[in-house]
Amino acid sequence: MSRPKIAILGAGYGGIMTATRLTKELGMNEAEITLVNKHNYHYQTTWLHEPAAGTLHHDRTRMSIKDVIDTNRINFVQDTVVSIDDANKTVKLENGELTYDYLVIGLGFESETFGIPGVKDYAFNIRSVDTVRKIKEHIEYQFASYNNEDNPSEGMLNIVVAGAGFTGIEFIGEMADRIPELCADFDVPREKVRLICAEAAPTVLPGFDEELVEYAVNLLERKGVEFMLGTPIKEVTEDSVILEEEEIKADTIVWTTGIRGNSIVENSGFETMRGRIKVESDLRAPGKDHVFIVGDCALIINEEINRPYPPTAQIAIQQSFTVARNLKTLINNGKLEAFVPEIKGTVASLGKGEAIGKVGNKKLYGATASAMKKIIDNRYLYLLGGIPLVVKKGKLKLF
Amino acid sequence: MSRPKIAILGAGYGGIMTATRLTKELGMNEAEITLVNKHNYHYQTTWLHEPAAGTLHHDRTRMSIKDVIDTNRINFVQDTVVSIDDANKTVKLENGELTYDYLVIGLGFESETFGIPGVKDYAFNIRSVDTVRKIKEHIEYQFASYNNEDNPSEGMLNIVVAGAGFTGIEFIGEMADRIPELCADFDVPREKVRLICAEAAPTVLPGFDEELVEYAVNLLERKGVEFMLGTPIKEVTEDSVILEEEEIKADTIVWTTGIRGNSIVENSGFETMRGRIKVESDLRAPGKDHVFIVGDCALIINEEINRPYPPTAQIAIQQSFTVARNLKTLINNGKLEAFVPEIKGTVASLGKGEAIGKVGNKKLYGATASAMKKIIDNRYLYLLGGIPLVVKKGKLKLF
Repeated sequence: MSRPKIAILGAGYGGIMTATRLTKELGMNEAEITLVNKHNYHYQTTWLHEPAAGTLHHDRTRMSIKDVIDTNRINFVQDTVVSIDDANKTVKLENGELTYDYLVIGLGFESETFGIPGVKDYAFNIRSVDTVRKIKEHIEYQFASYNNEDNPSEGMLNIVVAGAGFTGIEFIGEMADRIPELCADFDVPREKVRLICAEAAPTVLPGFDEELVEYAVNLLERKGVEFMLGTPIKEVTEDSVILEEEEIKADTIVWTTGIRGNSIVENSGFETMRGRIKVESDLRAPGKDHVFIVGDCALIINEEINRPYPPTAQIAIQQSFTVARNLKTLINNGKLEAFVPEIKGTVASLGKGEAIGKVGNKKLYGATASAMKKIIDNRYLYLLGGIPLVVKKGKLKLF
Repeated sequence: MSRPKIAILGAGYGGIMTATRLTKELGMNEAEITLVNKHNYHYQTTWLHEPAAGTLHHDRTRMSIKDVIDTNRINFVQDTVVSIDDANKTVKLENGELTYDYLVIGLGFESETFGIPGVKDYAFNIRSVDTVRKIKEHIEYQFASYNNEDNPSEGMLNIVVAGAGFTGIEFIGEMADRIPELCADFDVPREKVRLICAEAAPTVLPGFDEELVEYAVNLLERKGVEFMLGTPIKEVTEDSVILEEEEIKADTIVWTTGIRGNSIVENSGFETMRGRIKVESDLRAPGKDHVFIVGDCALIINEEINRPYPPTAQIAIQQSFTVARNLKTLINNGKLEAFVPEIKGTVASLGKGEAIGKVGNKKLYGATASAMKKIIDNRYLYLLGGIPLVVKKGKLKLF
């Protein structure tokens, strides 16, 4: 008797945790599990603002997939997904093809450019290990070049972060810490450097508690960050961002205005909203009884406020538990469970030893919030790889 | 009674050692000594191939000038020399002016481009802390960018070193060690990277013992270096070097074909050959009884072979001893001594733990030569700042 084939596309939070959970839910002979990923490593998307700023080595944010999955149970294929042909239950890869009975799509996000000219060509993204180490090295090159110029260009050391959402603010917090170090290392006066946050909305961190937001803005301003709120960007050029009424010269522009689902999903014929599939309550794609979506490609509405849940690691991880159980049920012909997100808390880091957050109804600031952020990060490592992974990759210095 | 004013321009090997020696030769009230330098630090020009490749932090190659000179005896001015008006015994600085009775010119070198088009615009130099950390960061940025490109350009990871002289070979040795580290750190297959040495002459390290040169070439080739000898470069473009019969794509071009004296000297009306003043035997400029030249701006002929001595740290340091004594004699109206270089040995490093050299008539290879190189480096630190400076900045791991 041949075992049903489960293919998991993407080894981000949702994908790798689904794979791991499946080995716990399913018996050895219940299914053949294949995990496909572009890289041979899994990385912590929610930590990427740190290697982007250069405050943490990128290796600290990634781990070999073979080290965290059970390779006796899961067949790992390192390849890039090109398209999904669900009619024929086939995935086209760059170097091959894969057939499946059940599919889990966890292909992650792309940066949302809103069609603004120049973003794709000139702005950096905080999306992967590859994109963030490029940001770090670019910024260091700018600093290293400065004293070689007789007349440095106006924007040479200016960094504009487009977007004051979670990723933007966390990156700014790290960068504000990093700039004085870069100035010392490369003999650059601090006043030659600008760190600007340009946001179209009138506030930072939409949805966050107002008091916490005020704390964050004050703290970051004290660290030298300039906020330009209610300031939509019209265009990005090689060396500037163009606003409604002015142009800011900047050789480093980091784009963090939001995300959309991986375009492979849309291009494969799934119906999407900003690249995300509005999933059924059991996390299946509408009309597809054998296709589950996890993570940033899944759109779930928060009925209380009639708006989508933000695409977070927390939700992706919770989804993986549901998907693994539902796959087990599906294979055994039972009734699938509905996914109910449980928002345990949200903490945004603001650089070394500083953060803001809410856990339950409790507001957290400063060192306490920062420690809580690290506990959350370590908790995920524990779920994925147990104590050994926490020891190896965890943030063990809480204060 | 007013003391005679001695101005020393440049705090390279020759300048800073002249300043240091003068405080030993002269009594407190014999002269007023001023040392002028662009930066507030002195650096080890002969170590710069290491921070250029990224195998040593640039701070290891530099030290605060105020930490190594006796500031009670020497007036340090951080400023950039614009020109010398010797008729009026005045030095024009970017932010002021300086008058002198005696002048010591130790303004160092510039890269010799031989007028080859594109070199000034597109090639990197190993000349100062500023120029070498730019090389390091540029190369790291190239590696960090590679995996972000769908179609990386052919020369993205190619490094061409123009010139197989001392600096070129020492940089290549470090870079050959560094490339495997960069490949590992940035997930780049080693075979995507080329390290090419293009040299117009038919051999590397002209003037070096043939057997040692062969050892060096074999060693570096085993480390993956491609030598293109007898291959003059016709032009450098933004992303290539153009040879007689082919074009090599390379986004990193490091120019090490030779040096000339600082153009300030020539532009100030001194008679020069390739920017260097052919000094009298007592190290004074011809026809100037109060102007001494040390280091790379001084041209001295080796009568044995009727060719100039190469501009080395070893000779610059020896000159500083003579100049300091001659200044003392001159102030006290005695007969000046002639400078006689004493070539104690020459060692070229070839990367970690590897070098070639000759000390006296003894040929050195491998670990022994590498240890000797470090001993020479430490010996200079001892001359300049005694044991404390050796402990602080020395290369203490000989093997």
